[in-house]
Amino acid sequence: MGDLLGVAVLGAGHMGADHIRRLDRVVSSARVAAVADPETDRAKEAAAGIDGVSVHAEPAAALDAPGVQAVLIASPGPAHEEALLAAFERGLPVLCEKPMTPDSAGALRVVEAEARLGRRLAQLGFMRRYDAEYMRLKSLLDSGRLGRPLMLHCTHRNVASPSHFTTPMLINSSVSHEIDAARWLLDEELTAVTVLRPRPSSNAPEGLLDPQFVLFETSGGTLVDVEIFVNSGFGYQVRCEAVCEGGSARIGDGHTMVVTTGGRAGEEVDQDYLVRFAEAYDREVQSWVDATRQGRVTGPSVWDGYAAAAVAEAGVRALESGVGQYVDLAVRPQAYEPTRRRTHDPRARS
Amino acid sequence: MGDLLGVAVLGAGHMGADHIRRLDRVVSSARVAAVADPETDRAKEAAAGIDGVSVHAEPAAALDAPGVQAVLIASPGPAHEEALLAAFERGLPVLCEKPMTPDSAGALRVVEAEARLGRRLAQLGFMRRYDAEYMRLKSLLDSGRLGRPLMLHCTHRNVASPSHFTTPMLINSSVSHEIDAARWLLDEELTAVTVLRPRPSSNAPEGLLDPQFVLFETSGGTLVDVEIFVNSGFGYQVRCEAVCEGGSARIGDGHTMVVTTGGRAGEEVDQDYLVRFAEAYDREVQSWVDATRQGRVTGPSVWDGYAAAAVAEAGVRALESGVGQYVDLAVRPQAYEPTRRRTHDPRARS
Amino acid sequence: MGDLLGVAVLGAGHMGADHIRRLDRVVSSARVAAVADPETDRAKEAAAGIDGVSVHAEPAAALDAPGVQAVLIASPGPAHEEALLAAFERGLPVLCEKPMTPDSAGALRVVEAEARLGRRLAQLGFMRRYDAEYMRLKSLLDSGRLGRPLMLHCTHRNVASPSHFTTPMLINSSVSHEIDAARWLLDEELTAVTVLRPRPSSNAPEGLLDPQFVLFETSGGTLVDVEIFVNSGFGYQVRCEAVCEGGSARIGDGHTMVVTTGGRAGEEVDQDYLVRFAEAYDREVQSWVDATRQGRVTGPSVWDGYAAAAVAEAGVRALESGVGQYVDLAVRPQAYEPTRRRTHDPRARS
Amino acid sequence: MGDLLGVAVLGAGHMGADHIRRLDRVVSSARVAAVADPETDRAKEAAAGIDGVSVHAEPAAALDAPGVQAVLIASPGPAHEEALLAAFERGLPVLCEKPMTPDSAGALRVVEAEARLGRRLAQLGFMRRYDAEYMRLKSLLDSGRLGRPLMLHCTHRNVASPSHFTTPMLINSSVSHEIDAARWLLDEELTAVTVLRPRPSSNAPEGLLDPQFVLFETSGGTLVDVEIFVNSGFGYQVRCEAVCEGGSARIGDGHTMVVTTGGRAGEEVDQDYLVRFAEAYDREVQSWVDATRQGRVTGPSVWDGYAAAAVAEAGVRALESGVGQYVDLAVRPQAYEPTRRRTHDPRARS
Repeated sequence: MGDLLGVAVLGAGHMGADHIRRLDRVVSSARVAAVADPETDRAKEAAAGIDGVSVHAEPAAALDAPGVQAVLIASPGPAHEEALLAAFERGLPVLCEKPMTPDSAGALRVVEAEARLGRRLAQLGFMRRYDAEYMRLKSLLDSGRLGRPLMLHCTHRNVASPSHFTTPMLINSSVSHEIDAARWLLDEELTAVTVLRPRPSSNAPEGLLDPQFVLFETSGGTLVDVEIFVNSGFGYQVRCEAVCEGGSARIGDGHTMVVTTGGRAGEEVDQDYLVRFAEAYDREVQSWVDATRQGRVTGPSVWDGYAAAAVAEAGVRALESGVGQYVDLAVRPQAYEPTRRRTHDPRARS
Repeated sequence: MGDLLGVAVLGAGHMGADHIRRLDRVVSSARVAAVADPETDRAKEAAAGIDGVSVHAEPAAALDAPGVQAVLIASPGPAHEEALLAAFERGLPVLCEKPMTPDSAGALRVVEAEARLGRRLAQLGFMRRYDAEYMRLKSLLDSGRLGRPLMLHCTHRNVASPSHFTTPMLINSSVSHEIDAARWLLDEELTAVTVLRPRPSSNAPEGLLDPQFVLFETSGGTLVDVEIFVNSGFGYQVRCEAVCEGGSARIGDGHTMVVTTGGRAGEEVDQDYLVRFAEAYDREVQSWVDATRQGRVTGPSVWDGYAAAAVAEAGVRALESGVGQYVDLAVRPQAYEPTRRRTHDPRARS
Repeated sequence: MGDLLGVAVLGAGHMGADHIRRLDRVVSSARVAAVADPETDRAKEAAAGIDGVSVHAEPAAALDAPGVQAVLIASPGPAHEEALLAAFERGLPVLCEKPMTPDSAGALRVVEAEARLGRRLAQLGFMRRYDAEYMRLKSLLDSGRLGRPLMLHCTHRNVASPSHFTTPMLINSSVSHEIDAARWLLDEELTAVTVLRPRPSSNAPEGLLDPQFVLFETSGGTLVDVEIFVNSGFGYQVRCEAVCEGGSARIGDGHTMVVTTGGRAGEEVDQDYLVRFAEAYDREVQSWVDATRQGRVTGPSVWDGYAAAAVAEAGVRALESGVGQYVDLAVRPQAYEPTRRRTHDPRARS
Repeated sequence: MGDLLGVAVLGAGHMGADHIRRLDRVVSSARVAAVADPETDRAKEAAAGIDGVSVHAEPAAALDAPGVQAVLIASPGPAHEEALLAAFERGLPVLCEKPMTPDSAGALRVVEAEARLGRRLAQLGFMRRYDAEYMRLKSLLDSGRLGRPLMLHCTHRNVASPSHFTTPMLINSSVSHEIDAARWLLDEELTAVTVLRPRPSSNAPEGLLDPQFVLFETSGGTLVDVEIFVNSGFGYQVRCEAVCEGGSARIGDGHTMVVTTGGRAGEEVDQDYLVRFAEAYDREVQSWVDATRQGRVTGPSVWDGYAAAAVAEAGVRALESGVGQYVDLAVRPQAYEPTRRRTHDPRARS
């Protein structure tokens, strides 16, 4: 396994277990080398079936385990600072889930520790920067095609909040995504903040001020407003509209990015099948690899290849003759499972 | 590298090279073990930088190369039959690009050869079955929620056709995607076909009958119509509307699937951030692994983590005081690149 | 009433009664001068309350009634030919509901009769030509901006068919709208027609072949396809996509016209409030006229005018001071009905 | 003309002339009885061709002119108070354009004057209450289906502001529409207001603070935010999203109202052609009346009626035979203008 990046995952809870699965099954060129969690049982469960992994109660032990070349921190927030500093000491690259630390004082200590190293080792887990829609919006803003941004209108709605959710968590857990997204999209710091509290929804737990409407100003004079509504009941909706001097662009309505400029509102149309179906190709080959490693064959069969060829041949005959054509199919070998519906008697046809 | 599936890739042209990159860089649990192309120079180029790969002129040599456990066929169509049969002889699982063979007679020989093996070894490269929108439509049809399908209306538009494109290729190269998609979505065979030829577009090359309108009937009495227009000039657009007894569902308008039923037209709203941002998480971790293996650190920094914490703290103060708050940021260490815009003087604020 | 056009309405059934209401209450510059229906009771009912109207059993009597200057024919189709010829004899302008006659032979006699007059007197009731979306599509096609049309894809769905509906009526009653719309949009005659019959929906009455898929060719080589589905169950949906050499345009998805061209799909954005709100102005003034004639006052009150002024003044103070402002409202006189919700205690504010 | 409401229009500028046209040509049951404008030339021009209208320099003279039963005030705002009081003295119903008066003190005097009358005489010209989309949103909110409203997010964008536009006018001229719409939609008074000023757009005239972001609180604790951007450059866009306890509803994106609730986002589909084409019917009959009064015949001809019948007959033959059919058309009489395109030679067909 020499070539694969050996990763120690700290924390085997919900998020940690998902990252372990991702490193093992989805991501190319990496492997899980060590897992640490104080609850070693769940660490073992998350690591089950992975070759060459070691399981630990202590983060430090995982960092020092054989084959570990990098660290993914998915433990609870209060444990992050110590884990980051331990990784820095060992010179290990880190991916750390958000929030980095519970407060800004701890966060600043991490900044200063990394600054003393003289080089970056850590990446923070603000995953919206890797979302296709956000990436497209960022790219459009950076292109300057719409001019300078003036306002960002953001919506962040959850179906329901977890039972432990408190009023301040609407800001420091939920809106923290928009805080990072706004800083990143605008390349500006946020300099001031106001929070408005409309009448709480009767669907919010007693005492929770939900929704809230949060307003940020930036170092560049841009205004960012965020509707945060964690008990909307109706869906997980994340939207962002950037209003610029020359047009607006909106993501997040179950739509590709809608851009309004020059008297037209619309979206780009893909120009190429490799763009449109890029992810389908990836998924196709990954599926094939996964099935093959398990000794299975799934997906379209050679019968499907044959049927497509036979239909296409009839189509070319129909094209050239100008007359409708029947498709002549051979008898299907039993190995190829029958399709379900076959009762129709198509009408006579030349 | 014991655990990774060793794949021989036959063909190092446009599609083959893309699959080599995919197996090496995107797909988990696989590696490229051998590459074959009569033009060995381009085989070498596509294989450059990959550990443990061997390069061959002959497909058979690649199949027999050390570490080969499976085959991906991306050579030109006329070479597929021989390659498939060679893989069958060796008992190697195969992923074969479409079209399986240039004609249905060759396709039937492949079917019979695999049937003689008594087990499936081959998967065909109909990648639309792996597209998120098609998968969603398939899942909806299979659920029976909309009742039996009655019609499929399909649109398939390219910006422009390659110079070698002929009139029959609109059917057997382009519409072949819809042929497979219709068979798969409906679980029915196509039994008859008619081709209508409206006035050709003046943007089509002289002599090319483009667009065409193709009509299929199925074994179950469903009607499938396909607009194929390979010189539309305006975009790559693939759409499919399934009209069923209890509603219709449409994919492919830059929109998530739009379902019309019971007097309402609309789309599902995600209920969960892990669904909405699933691909963002995958892309985030893959990016981090890729950068780390190259000794680089990219993505959000600890300064971003600190800034988010400081803004969130100010937000909580604003929430609790009911008054707008400034954000106090420490001086940014030089290691963290400055953001671009910083000229605005925010107005006075309590 | 000298200035108003005096109209005789033939037929006081569902459609006739609606046109009587429209001429009396909605349309400017016209009045209903006579109503004829063999069932004179329903003619009287439809004419009730209209000044100066006469009621007749015989169409001819209505045409000869005092004040009649024009005729609107809304009687059953078999009565149209005689009524049209009677209007032609009297030199009366006619608006005739569709279908003009039950068959083309009768229709041709009407054409020949009008042609002998040497001038047009009759307008046919193909109302889609007056629909805002169709008018927009027609205007775009006539502009030539998208080049020559190659195909029209049409959808025509009803929730359920009336009990008397027969299989041929899907063509000659329902698709007749698309027949006229296609001829008008394209400025071409339809020269050939094919009808395909997918499996009938189980929601269609026993024996009714529903849906059907109808294909027309035109004198200019354009292809027109129509899905007609009169027992869709899910809605009344009328859509039309024109595929042209330089782009496509689609109406009828609960959306303004969506145009795809040059790699972008989108819609025009209004440039002016008089365009955006043209119908609101019309409706506002009509509402006011209607209420006033009945001695009533409805709509926004002077209290609404005052409240808007008071809020706007507070807004300007807020703008100029940079500080949030309360709105000071006078006590509302009892004449102005209270708003419903007033329980909230807004938080303290400078 | 006894039956028609005789209206005096005060002001013959842009808005006044448009209302004169509307009363004369569009609205049923009304006529313009008098026009007043200090610039009598433009009053005469606006009144040209209208039967029985008198023209005046003084508003009072117009109110006292023969046949005047009601008043429409479209003069400049500073003239409204006097005109309203004059109408009240005479007991004349009034429709008064917005703003009612330049300030709230004058507005309150109007309220008090009408209150002394003991009955309403005046309707204010807040025309959004008559817009189909706003009416649909109001109806949904009043139905209670989405529960209590918590927030309204509003967007109001113009292409460019007129040259006389000042910073306060963004509030008291532009946002005044949202002020009324919010009060009306919510049935609540606005109790507090804050105005935020992002960096002005470089497209705004020097010194104009554009855009602004305005926040209102209501008597019921609802939050209303308004983006006002009068030099957006890209379009006239008016949007409103109501976020309620049980779902959200949005109007104004070139779309019918989009409602999100219960995990689905979508729109209603019309159930009936009389709903879908209501305005087409009105426009059709109005067109016919207008042309007829001018001695012209426009719109679909009997040839169109004949052609539709002939095509439908061929369609029924095609349906019944299962074979494509030609359409046999008679020779078109010269009176019926030829269609434009007729060069195509349709291919042979049974």
